[in-house]
Amino acid sequence: MLKLDFHPAGRHFLQIPGPSPVPDRILRAMSYPTIDHRGPEFGALGLSVMDGIKKVFKTTQPVVIYPASGTGAWEAALTNTLSPGDAVLMYETGHFATLWKKMAESLGLKPEFLGLPGVEGWRRGVQADMIEARLRADTGHAIKAVCVVHNETSTGVTSDIAAVRRAIDAAGHPALFMVDTISGLACADYRHDEWGVDVTVSGSQKGLMLPPGISFNALSQKALEASREAKLPRAFWSWAEIVEMNKEGYWPYTPNTNLLYGLSEALEMILGEGLDNVFARHRRLAAACRAAVTAWGLEIQCVDPAVYSPVLTGVVMQEGVDADAVRKLIYERFDLSLGTGLGKVKGRMFRIGHLGDCNDLALMAALAGCEMGLRLAGVTLRASGVGAAMDYLAQHESAPRLKAVA
Amino acid sequence: MLKLDFHPAGRHFLQIPGPSPVPDRILRAMSYPTIDHRGPEFGALGLSVMDGIKKVFKTTQPVVIYPASGTGAWEAALTNTLSPGDAVLMYETGHFATLWKKMAESLGLKPEFLGLPGVEGWRRGVQADMIEARLRADTGHAIKAVCVVHNETSTGVTSDIAAVRRAIDAAGHPALFMVDTISGLACADYRHDEWGVDVTVSGSQKGLMLPPGISFNALSQKALEASREAKLPRAFWSWAEIVEMNKEGYWPYTPNTNLLYGLSEALEMILGEGLDNVFARHRRLAAACRAAVTAWGLEIQCVDPAVYSPVLTGVVMQEGVDADAVRKLIYERFDLSLGTGLGKVKGRMFRIGHLGDCNDLALMAALAGCEMGLRLAGVTLRASGVGAAMDYLAQHESAPRLKAVA
Amino acid sequence: MLKLDFHPAGRHFLQIPGPSPVPDRILRAMSYPTIDHRGPEFGALGLSVMDGIKKVFKTTQPVVIYPASGTGAWEAALTNTLSPGDAVLMYETGHFATLWKKMAESLGLKPEFLGLPGVEGWRRGVQADMIEARLRADTGHAIKAVCVVHNETSTGVTSDIAAVRRAIDAAGHPALFMVDTISGLACADYRHDEWGVDVTVSGSQKGLMLPPGISFNALSQKALEASREAKLPRAFWSWAEIVEMNKEGYWPYTPNTNLLYGLSEALEMILGEGLDNVFARHRRLAAACRAAVTAWGLEIQCVDPAVYSPVLTGVVMQEGVDADAVRKLIYERFDLSLGTGLGKVKGRMFRIGHLGDCNDLALMAALAGCEMGLRLAGVTLRASGVGAAMDYLAQHESAPRLKAVA
Amino acid sequence: MLKLDFHPAGRHFLQIPGPSPVPDRILRAMSYPTIDHRGPEFGALGLSVMDGIKKVFKTTQPVVIYPASGTGAWEAALTNTLSPGDAVLMYETGHFATLWKKMAESLGLKPEFLGLPGVEGWRRGVQADMIEARLRADTGHAIKAVCVVHNETSTGVTSDIAAVRRAIDAAGHPALFMVDTISGLACADYRHDEWGVDVTVSGSQKGLMLPPGISFNALSQKALEASREAKLPRAFWSWAEIVEMNKEGYWPYTPNTNLLYGLSEALEMILGEGLDNVFARHRRLAAACRAAVTAWGLEIQCVDPAVYSPVLTGVVMQEGVDADAVRKLIYERFDLSLGTGLGKVKGRMFRIGHLGDCNDLALMAALAGCEMGLRLAGVTLRASGVGAAMDYLAQHESAPRLKAVA
Repeated sequence: MLKLDFHPAGRHFLQIPGPSPVPDRILRAMSYPTIDHRGPEFGALGLSVMDGIKKVFKTTQPVVIYPASGTGAWEAALTNTLSPGDAVLMYETGHFATLWKKMAESLGLKPEFLGLPGVEGWRRGVQADMIEARLRADTGHAIKAVCVVHNETSTGVTSDIAAVRRAIDAAGHPALFMVDTISGLACADYRHDEWGVDVTVSGSQKGLMLPPGISFNALSQKALEASREAKLPRAFWSWAEIVEMNKEGYWPYTPNTNLLYGLSEALEMILGEGLDNVFARHRRLAAACRAAVTAWGLEIQCVDPAVYSPVLTGVVMQEGVDADAVRKLIYERFDLSLGTGLGKVKGRMFRIGHLGDCNDLALMAALAGCEMGLRLAGVTLRASGVGAAMDYLAQHESAPRLKAVA
Repeated sequence: MLKLDFHPAGRHFLQIPGPSPVPDRILRAMSYPTIDHRGPEFGALGLSVMDGIKKVFKTTQPVVIYPASGTGAWEAALTNTLSPGDAVLMYETGHFATLWKKMAESLGLKPEFLGLPGVEGWRRGVQADMIEARLRADTGHAIKAVCVVHNETSTGVTSDIAAVRRAIDAAGHPALFMVDTISGLACADYRHDEWGVDVTVSGSQKGLMLPPGISFNALSQKALEASREAKLPRAFWSWAEIVEMNKEGYWPYTPNTNLLYGLSEALEMILGEGLDNVFARHRRLAAACRAAVTAWGLEIQCVDPAVYSPVLTGVVMQEGVDADAVRKLIYERFDLSLGTGLGKVKGRMFRIGHLGDCNDLALMAALAGCEMGLRLAGVTLRASGVGAAMDYLAQHESAPRLKAVA
Repeated sequence: MLKLDFHPAGRHFLQIPGPSPVPDRILRAMSYPTIDHRGPEFGALGLSVMDGIKKVFKTTQPVVIYPASGTGAWEAALTNTLSPGDAVLMYETGHFATLWKKMAESLGLKPEFLGLPGVEGWRRGVQADMIEARLRADTGHAIKAVCVVHNETSTGVTSDIAAVRRAIDAAGHPALFMVDTISGLACADYRHDEWGVDVTVSGSQKGLMLPPGISFNALSQKALEASREAKLPRAFWSWAEIVEMNKEGYWPYTPNTNLLYGLSEALEMILGEGLDNVFARHRRLAAACRAAVTAWGLEIQCVDPAVYSPVLTGVVMQEGVDADAVRKLIYERFDLSLGTGLGKVKGRMFRIGHLGDCNDLALMAALAGCEMGLRLAGVTLRASGVGAAMDYLAQHESAPRLKAVA
Repeated sequence: MLKLDFHPAGRHFLQIPGPSPVPDRILRAMSYPTIDHRGPEFGALGLSVMDGIKKVFKTTQPVVIYPASGTGAWEAALTNTLSPGDAVLMYETGHFATLWKKMAESLGLKPEFLGLPGVEGWRRGVQADMIEARLRADTGHAIKAVCVVHNETSTGVTSDIAAVRRAIDAAGHPALFMVDTISGLACADYRHDEWGVDVTVSGSQKGLMLPPGISFNALSQKALEASREAKLPRAFWSWAEIVEMNKEGYWPYTPNTNLLYGLSEALEMILGEGLDNVFARHRRLAAACRAAVTAWGLEIQCVDPAVYSPVLTGVVMQEGVDADAVRKLIYERFDLSLGTGLGKVKGRMFRIGHLGDCNDLALMAALAGCEMGLRLAGVTLRASGVGAAMDYLAQHESAPRLKAVA
């Protein structure tokens, strides 16, 4: 028999940039008995989670919840709005932007990939001026959609989505605007309506603190209109029937009820804490983490402080050090999971997640594991990152602690 | 705050034909902490569940596990193997066969729908001779796939899949053979390899006793070869990369880890009980349920005893009785969920599920709820169905009770 | 490895008169992380459960919560109030009254056991007039306490506690009045203050729907005063320090935190449903159960309708039938646990519990299991008890179903 | 409604010396449905946990499991073996030894309290030579029992129990030997049989990693014989009937089934890891913790390195610093629970627990919380304790990590 708890002595520290640790409240909520997805209680559950999730996206428009992982929501965004051969402008912020572009190709679209040369684009945010210039040049409006990643999970860069909106507007271009905030939602501020996003893609296993298995498309009226003309074949992902049935709190096919229980609990936790408090908590932990990396004398993958991610920090290894060997040592010695370097930066960096249900001491545990592991791996550290992070956290008070007892 | 347990006094009886009641062991397994889907333990989990699920499908070929509901697995079967405009022969056994056909149309295929006239086809199994005749007529082999539903969840009819295989072979037709056993798997015998099925579609929330959110494609070499030529666009559902990464126990995108925990536990339960014992248990409960319906003097939706479903029983109302009004009364008075009539038989019948984690007394509870509810709704019953079911169960001993203590 | 879920296929039906089935809400609540029993949150939890439990006892006086099972609370009631050699008047309602008397002897008290002759006392409630007569005869007030059982779990008889109070008052006797309502609390109406009870003993695993492990002493000022003079040695059970520390929500030693989580949830469920609704639900189910027993042509252990228990029903076997053999057959064939006959009625009767988190269909399942099992055991039944119970339940509507969605 | 998860953002760090953090495996096990404590499966569970717990006590003699907290097991040890007015030799190692002595007085025994003067005894282990001398002087064998605490939870001192045994033997004294290892069991080596202990008292919420609510008496034949003559009144705690019924795996009264599920899981975890590995893990974490305290320039409460506790470390504050104010600040700022100073050392020290389900990074988190909190409280630290602990842990490899996948 396979044991499902793989970490016999003591709790495992899961500090990857998602899935993030699932709080006990959510795990308990998920373990309630499954109910009839056509019964009256289900409708109440459905309406409740749809109402809550709109607040997190800061939208009043429909948010489609898929019983699928985030990759599926990428596909849904594209197939609902576009037709075979459509040109799409995408921006290379890192590995996940690259995967989304590959998907667009697989689906028969014609993505054009903007970006800075070499790995430079993987260390900075979306350059809105490049998008604006490209759209201005597209006088025939061949480009049907602009697709960018809000928080690039592979690098730890959180791009300025409002700036991209302004760029599209400045170019007077009618393209749809699609944003992937799979790892950004409920960690960094995000404003679907205010920023004029047409489709926002997100997932459950990051800031929402759920296990993987739920993903989202937040829509705009323009996106819904586009979906009526779009010719890419689609069925499972098709918005029309879902949006219609969602009005009563139901789905055209079987939703994953138990993860919706988890979503209900997650929304209560997040909206209870307050979105602004959630964002501030993430920012503070990220700053402490960067203080550690800087003290160690290591480079942060993101080189533009304006777009440091509150979700994760990419730690660049010195020349000659294999980041994955360091990760493996830390995993085996200290029961700490860190994110691997992906794509162009494989072996060059590792990623520390500090998102979702994270707090000061969980971060300190992770940093202590990193510091011990780096030293054991023979990496020369300039100073104690743990000490620097403690200094930061001690000097910067967090939001007043929540009163759990009403 | 929304309470997640909607049934304050006493346990709700969920006797719909899926989602079926999730056993405590599975709910507990699902509530273990989410782990890194790229870490070493995950690979062990992945390999373990893939090994187990193959035994349930009775196959040695790849089984693709999707982090999505069953409807997605229908789409996966079609998009991986077919090209726009391909002709597909489908068979109308009921509502779900009809939905699958509609999906084929949405994806740009040309489904042809065989079936008996009127609602007759909804009361009998797949007529293999009709399929054979149609394939013989297709001398040009325009038909690329034959698609049938094994256990039609909307009616309670379990078709003879081996007979369809023989029909295809008799016609000497090269079409792919695709079977939906979403509600049949782990309830009724199913033999992917022996029956020469190319793609078997299934889901988690029926015989596997999981919450919804996982679905399956069991493949054949012929299906894999077809996927190399198939032109329907696909990305999320694409087999190639999944099958490749699955060899090490991983997935190209984030799998829904916690449902895989549940799957691991479900496989241990099912294979521990023994597939033949599981099937015998389902047959016995189904027979007791039909004894009740017959005693009541009501008709069973399935009129051919050779294809009675071991999963659910469709109960046809007398003329003038609204089946949904009866269901509503039973739900409100007795906290029992029954399946509604779907499509052509809406309002004419309701469905009693007796699948998955069901036993004698859960069935008796459901039948008592039905009998009281039918009487309260003014339906004239010939005799006590509850009495007839008790007679059946008392006279037919179940498999020797499992010894839980090793 | 020992598996903890002993019932592989389908849910076990636990219809013994306690422990009663623990609702999912309570099991989930109990699985929250243990907290510091000296920390600030614990105090809030402690105050909250003490406030709630007082409402269930209908008292404004202290209720002591022990991290121990009910037997311990019996001991606590005696050792806190009495001195070695004290005379105690107890009443033989059945097996549990007998055990309490044996305990009094073990502790060095001098219990006198009133009761009707033979097993007659085990089929009727406390005869208050016998108590009154005995107290009148005790002109020297040698008797220090009168101890009776409210709901005798071994027989299914719920005595009239108010009548005993009136008897004590009529006799003008100063004895303390102690009542065991271990299985009665939160099933049958109970009024600690109004009935002038000095110590009420109760436990967690019956009407409160918790697992065993918590027990109670509800006190009066008179009991507290008696405790200052009482000479029986005591430490763990001693009220004084507990009552003092309870004022802030804490305990002098480590309380069983996770069961207190469960108690918190149970109180919310019970007070949310409303005590009167809870009592009415129990009465209705008990009446349906008795309708079944009567239809079978079997005797109910309790022969006085005025004191039928809403908690459980004792079913007397015909001469020559071994009740435990019947129970064993039912257990093995139908996965249903029933209560055994205890003490004087061992082998003569079995007990059906219908308490706590019970509802119509759970009762119907239990009755169906009994009816099938009795027939298989060769017991001749006059008519279908299941049918009679269905008639009763269908004709007597339950309280309006709770709206879970606020 | 009271929320049961009091720590909304991120996991609380519970580093008190018990209750220790309960692992997920145990919380899940505890949430299985309660079963009939008289049914066949219960017997199997009972026998299994009794077999396992004997291995942890290193005894082949009966171990009585009480459905009560540890304080009750203290009372059981005394009341089962002694008679009113018996002289008992106890040793003052700290607060808990003092409470046990107070209990002996409450029960009518005559405890004599040995110990070093002032708080000196609270900083060293049991002085076996003092016990030997006192017993030698007791030529009339008036002393009926010697009672010592193995791991004094209030100070962090683990006394040498074998030395006390040798002292009793050297004095040729027939007194019973009773040991409290409530917080030592399954953390530090303990040998009930080899050390000739007559009654060992323990509890669930420390090294066994369970919530509070279960406690133990491990017995010897000599203790059982003494219990036949002992005159202190007892009922709930009485060994005789429990030991008799335990032979079949049952209890005379309702045991707390769900905590026994937890115990079953805990035993599997502990015996699976191996007792020697468990002890080594505790010693290593304790050494790292002391390295931190020493680096800070603070005193450890235990001044004799031979008896440093592997369970907890007492940290003595500098003159003028209120330890409880520091604890409160740490709790409020860093969501970390530490143990308070008790009795004679109240306000002078706090306690860091590193027992049970603890690992390297949980300890590092706790030490980081302490270090930040101490600095914020204005305590001058000589150097970084966190750094010293990291040095220790990095240099001392732990036991090879357990392979969870068989």
